[in-house]
Amino acid sequence: MQYHFSEFTEGLKSSAVREILKLTQGKSIISFAGGLPAEEHFPIEAMREAFNRVFDQGKGSLQYGLTEGYTPLREQLCQRMAKKGIKADLPNILLTTGSQQAIDLLVKVYLTRGDVVLVENPTYLSVIQVFQAYGIKAVPVDGDDDGMNMDDLRSKIETHKPKMVYVTPTFSNPGGRVWSAERRKAIVEICQKANLLILEDDPYGELQYNDEEAYPPIMSFDTHPEGSCVVYTSTFSKIAAPALRTGWVIGDSRVIREMTKAKQAADLHSSTLDQQGLYQLLKHFDLDAHISVIRREYHKRMLLLDSLLHQYKVPGMSWNAPKGGMFLWVELPEGVDAEELLKLAVKEGVAFVPGSAFYAGEPKRNTLRMNFTHSNEAEMRLGMERFSRSLEAYLQTV
Amino acid sequence: MQYHFSEFTEGLKSSAVREILKLTQGKSIISFAGGLPAEEHFPIEAMREAFNRVFDQGKGSLQYGLTEGYTPLREQLCQRMAKKGIKADLPNILLTTGSQQAIDLLVKVYLTRGDVVLVENPTYLSVIQVFQAYGIKAVPVDGDDDGMNMDDLRSKIETHKPKMVYVTPTFSNPGGRVWSAERRKAIVEICQKANLLILEDDPYGELQYNDEEAYPPIMSFDTHPEGSCVVYTSTFSKIAAPALRTGWVIGDSRVIREMTKAKQAADLHSSTLDQQGLYQLLKHFDLDAHISVIRREYHKRMLLLDSLLHQYKVPGMSWNAPKGGMFLWVELPEGVDAEELLKLAVKEGVAFVPGSAFYAGEPKRNTLRMNFTHSNEAEMRLGMERFSRSLEAYLQTV
Repeated sequence: MQYHFSEFTEGLKSSAVREILKLTQGKSIISFAGGLPAEEHFPIEAMREAFNRVFDQGKGSLQYGLTEGYTPLREQLCQRMAKKGIKADLPNILLTTGSQQAIDLLVKVYLTRGDVVLVENPTYLSVIQVFQAYGIKAVPVDGDDDGMNMDDLRSKIETHKPKMVYVTPTFSNPGGRVWSAERRKAIVEICQKANLLILEDDPYGELQYNDEEAYPPIMSFDTHPEGSCVVYTSTFSKIAAPALRTGWVIGDSRVIREMTKAKQAADLHSSTLDQQGLYQLLKHFDLDAHISVIRREYHKRMLLLDSLLHQYKVPGMSWNAPKGGMFLWVELPEGVDAEELLKLAVKEGVAFVPGSAFYAGEPKRNTLRMNFTHSNEAEMRLGMERFSRSLEAYLQTV
Repeated sequence: MQYHFSEFTEGLKSSAVREILKLTQGKSIISFAGGLPAEEHFPIEAMREAFNRVFDQGKGSLQYGLTEGYTPLREQLCQRMAKKGIKADLPNILLTTGSQQAIDLLVKVYLTRGDVVLVENPTYLSVIQVFQAYGIKAVPVDGDDDGMNMDDLRSKIETHKPKMVYVTPTFSNPGGRVWSAERRKAIVEICQKANLLILEDDPYGELQYNDEEAYPPIMSFDTHPEGSCVVYTSTFSKIAAPALRTGWVIGDSRVIREMTKAKQAADLHSSTLDQQGLYQLLKHFDLDAHISVIRREYHKRMLLLDSLLHQYKVPGMSWNAPKGGMFLWVELPEGVDAEELLKLAVKEGVAFVPGSAFYAGEPKRNTLRMNFTHSNEAEMRLGMERFSRSLEAYLQTV
């Protein structure tokens, strides 16, 4: 039998992060690569209690559900989002298998092969992968520490006639960047005028280390999801637990309706057992207190990685110290190729993600992303020692 | 904001069954429409125990998992499939969000807009919906009580140059039909020669009412998934519980690899909490004994619906008495339009699915599908009384 795959597979590349994850499984490699939350902080006993409450509800809890997702959880999420300035009603919200599925569904219903999407530079690598598979052209827009450059955005809209802009404005992956309020407001105004859809991906927004500043979602700068140029997605993966793969997406009811139909064709619905479990968790467990604990812990770990980077710094190396999220973005000396460095690093027993994977256009090959939420202090110290050895070895060869 | 949806949405219709399900929610309508299993038989206490065992494993059970799914469950499923004559190894199996996702992923990686797929006549309505959305042309092949007509299959292969054949050979939805061993063998031979992929959808195979005959999967007529012209999919939805949305797909490792990459882009992975729960369920609960109970119960309900149909039979009406599965297929007198009949039926307080939804080509409008697994005896009696009243009212108007 000879298999003849579709044109979809031609653009389909496996994610670099997940391939590295596979390589490191079962080995004694310290990984700064994945985007894994700290397991020690998963609220497992609260989760057990939540699921037992679901089972107490009776056998109906195991039946098929609506494609839209478990209604009481959707209602709860509307209330939660209201605190962030997003006034969604039930027809504006769909539950998904993680926010990754929200991205996939929106691409399906809104973009056609050959369409252009504007993205940050660098941007979330899995979204580049989705666009490639669907034959969508991702065009990077310049940016700085305050977010996307609005002049370049206007100019790229003019030149490329895009159908969508994809952004992660709060503690971005990989950059750890957070957009200023001015830029948030500006992108809504620009896209409203240009009749251009914004996909706001917000998996890390809750992981802000301190409350000194507020970073309201871009969607909150529009009056209501109904008629909004913004579609917003987030997930329980980073604030509760990833294994349940429960995310949500908020948008105009017509957009949500098309996404719901696409979801029905894709998988009928996501696990409603998990959705019911999360509903019970939100009802009987102080998730916000839990999130505060994670925030403090991640802040501590970020500061540790930052200090270790200072300790092992080589000339020409720089990085950011993010205000939230799970990643630190490192620029290595000019001329260093982080993909080559990774090969040496894995031999030393440490992994990270080369920055090149996060560029839709020409990559800066001397960049890399480090996750600091999954390793404990001892692992981070040992991992950075190994990283430093591999970097020195690399620098001696060039 | 004006939204401009993709070409995907143009072919995207909401499923008739699910639209009816929505209409009937919260109302006192007796539904023969959905494909819902009997809730009374969900093994909820065994499921509670299984999930508690997962939580006992510690916090790691809440972490991200592999796209392929929870490895121990994949191993268990390989062993289970071996009993059905399918010798799959780990690289041949992928866990999905129900078998619906297996269908969606295979369509993505194997078919390109404009391709042709051959289907049974009638066939599973959701698959028609998926094909339409992706711009795939579904061409019906004639059949009889023994399955697809092999002469018509050969002729349609010749004429339409299809890339795939989609079949549900064991207790099909909607027909309740089961293919003979000869036809199973024949389709594999024909498709091997024609280099044509078969998607064997087998959600109901375990729901055989008695063990007099064996219906081995079509895939078992091929030597091994590696190099096979068959891709096989099934689900826990009908034998354990649908809320967990856990299905699996077996095929050549290259096909599974492409599907895994497509799944990674679509949702990273399905709920591994649910997959771990099902692993513990299989390990500590006698699922086969449980399936025997369901089989007996469904047989009893099928016989009841059959006897009620005899009681309310009108001239020109006929139906099958299936050997397994969840559906009974009714042909009404010539000239009756089941969609029109449904409107009267819903007023009377009973629902079913008009047969027209299950035809990829010209529909037989005087057909309908009845589910007998979700209603209890009293509901079935009352429902059929209402059905009969609406049928009589309909017949008086024409």
